[in-house]
Amino acid sequence: MVKRVHNFCAGPCTLPLSVLKDVQQEFVDFHNAGMSLIEMSHRSKEYDAVHMEAMRLARETFGAPDDFEVLFIQGGATLQFAMVPMNLLKPGQKAGYVNSGSWATGALRDGAHYGELYTAWDGAGEDYMRMPAPAEIALQNDTRYLHVTSNETIGGIRITEWPDLGVPLVADVSSEFMARPIPWKLFDLVYGGIQKNLGPAGMAVVFVRKGALTDANQSIANYLRYDVHADKQSLFNTPPMFAIYMLGKVLAWMQDRGGLAVIEQDAADKAGMLYGVIDASDGFYRCPVNEQNRSHMNVVFRLPDEDLEARFLKEAASADMVNLKGHRSVGGCRASIYNAMPKESVGVLADFMRQFAKQNG
Amino acid sequence: MVKRVHNFCAGPCTLPLSVLKDVQQEFVDFHNAGMSLIEMSHRSKEYDAVHMEAMRLARETFGAPDDFEVLFIQGGATLQFAMVPMNLLKPGQKAGYVNSGSWATGALRDGAHYGELYTAWDGAGEDYMRMPAPAEIALQNDTRYLHVTSNETIGGIRITEWPDLGVPLVADVSSEFMARPIPWKLFDLVYGGIQKNLGPAGMAVVFVRKGALTDANQSIANYLRYDVHADKQSLFNTPPMFAIYMLGKVLAWMQDRGGLAVIEQDAADKAGMLYGVIDASDGFYRCPVNEQNRSHMNVVFRLPDEDLEARFLKEAASADMVNLKGHRSVGGCRASIYNAMPKESVGVLADFMRQFAKQNG
Repeated sequence: MVKRVHNFCAGPCTLPLSVLKDVQQEFVDFHNAGMSLIEMSHRSKEYDAVHMEAMRLARETFGAPDDFEVLFIQGGATLQFAMVPMNLLKPGQKAGYVNSGSWATGALRDGAHYGELYTAWDGAGEDYMRMPAPAEIALQNDTRYLHVTSNETIGGIRITEWPDLGVPLVADVSSEFMARPIPWKLFDLVYGGIQKNLGPAGMAVVFVRKGALTDANQSIANYLRYDVHADKQSLFNTPPMFAIYMLGKVLAWMQDRGGLAVIEQDAADKAGMLYGVIDASDGFYRCPVNEQNRSHMNVVFRLPDEDLEARFLKEAASADMVNLKGHRSVGGCRASIYNAMPKESVGVLADFMRQFAKQNG
Repeated sequence: MVKRVHNFCAGPCTLPLSVLKDVQQEFVDFHNAGMSLIEMSHRSKEYDAVHMEAMRLARETFGAPDDFEVLFIQGGATLQFAMVPMNLLKPGQKAGYVNSGSWATGALRDGAHYGELYTAWDGAGEDYMRMPAPAEIALQNDTRYLHVTSNETIGGIRITEWPDLGVPLVADVSSEFMARPIPWKLFDLVYGGIQKNLGPAGMAVVFVRKGALTDANQSIANYLRYDVHADKQSLFNTPPMFAIYMLGKVLAWMQDRGGLAVIEQDAADKAGMLYGVIDASDGFYRCPVNEQNRSHMNVVFRLPDEDLEARFLKEAASADMVNLKGHRSVGGCRASIYNAMPKESVGVLADFMRQFAKQNG
């Protein structure tokens, strides 16, 4: 029996146990090849099959249309903060950014080295407790794209209504990657690190509209060019093979569960279990987030005071519920419940929360 | 008994079997934590210990002095082609590049977007069959650094004498990373992908002189700044934890074998076994490389004709010696014998080569 705790980490975090066991089993000798997958040439037939299957599953699971490229790029979402404007912005064009919290701020700060970026909506004055309604977003002329962070891991908020404002959207979906469907017609680019919902740390997956690449900037290094990665099917240089391999395994696991629609419903159900406890606690637990923007991935909540929060975290850890502390920049508690988090674990936490409130309320 | 072939791939390639087994054993439940290492927060105590130990071992194994930073950065050596000039070159400064083959050409091509780069020596006219003597390298005024590729994986050549020309060196050592010592006083920066000698694909390790960071360019995105990675000990964003973890395991294995000096001697011995067969074959095997620049990592050789080469590769594969085909751009044969390649496997290949020559000479 494998020891297993309930891991509510904000990322990296829980992956499907069946996938971990599968990877373990074939780790030293991959499919009787006499070597590990990580010892194989990235140009070998065996690896190529793994690579192409992960790419196919990424497209299929996310429902990305044929006119989008699927790219595997190292550097996480953080490098994408730079690559998006590097590739997409031309002189005379601007990009609008919805500043919904910590990650949006990072995207704007890093991207500003590579083009004219502006804040199209700013949640800072409201402590990032909500996302904007589309009508609140102020677009300027010559805006090439509008950048949104669909879910803020730290603030625990998600976009409810995608802004359909006549400007292509670019979204960082890192913390709800493949946990909800994307209305592709509104988008030129969707990107995210895979280390929360989809695999180990060490890679981003980028979905980019082919038409957006035809006049992309080519006066940058090859590694930073989307069109180069696209032309070579993300085999331009040695790819992060283990991350891609595991991505494929996790995606196959998602497909086995029924695909994106089932995963999305599960996410809503799991989040609902925790928000339900919070709302029924007579104010013992408090979610600081605007109700309609509550994240389905990162459930943030406060207790009546910090001493109780400390005791809550300690008692939870004693009962094998770990990594429930909120981000250091905001404090409080946070339960991150990504795709691979079992509903049973969320149930255990919900029960614990009810009992803790009863005993300490 | 694990099935194991002799894998002479140019990279990714053979890793120590003991390391693979160790990783397999602790893959699902890392040190009784109730989760896999790849499910852990990169801010956790458990992961932090792994991270810092890998960093310490990288410094210790390579003998890097205290005035060098050790950085873990995604994107392989390929992203470093861009990051080196991005960070180190200021307006008015130039960088010289020794063009010793395919990888040096890549470094120059990608770097040229970020500063004034020039070719300080060009091996193209001689089919990249040798490295320059230091006196052949033509430096221009205001040269900030001289870039060298210490071993060309495709050409099978290595630098014998590091150029001490009064200009700091920058070296791509990807294909002989930690297989030879570095005279650090000549260097401002040493970088390489880890997927040949040191671990799985998905990361570069960069050793950079601290003094070179004090006036490095800060007008670039955070992920592309050496000083940002240095300040945060490569935990600025989620690092490629599995690659770092495995790097630490491989480095510990190297230390157990006796460290860099032993590894260097082993490399010379292993290469010597194959060059010995080539030189004693009465011209049946031919190494196209200038003798004093013969690589200790990538032994390239030709047979009398392409039909014999094809038969050689086929019969070798039948005897479980795989990935001996030369790079598609140059043809012929290539045995890549990185740090984890057992001497026994090289012996098996040497015996096979002798026998094949006897039967077909």
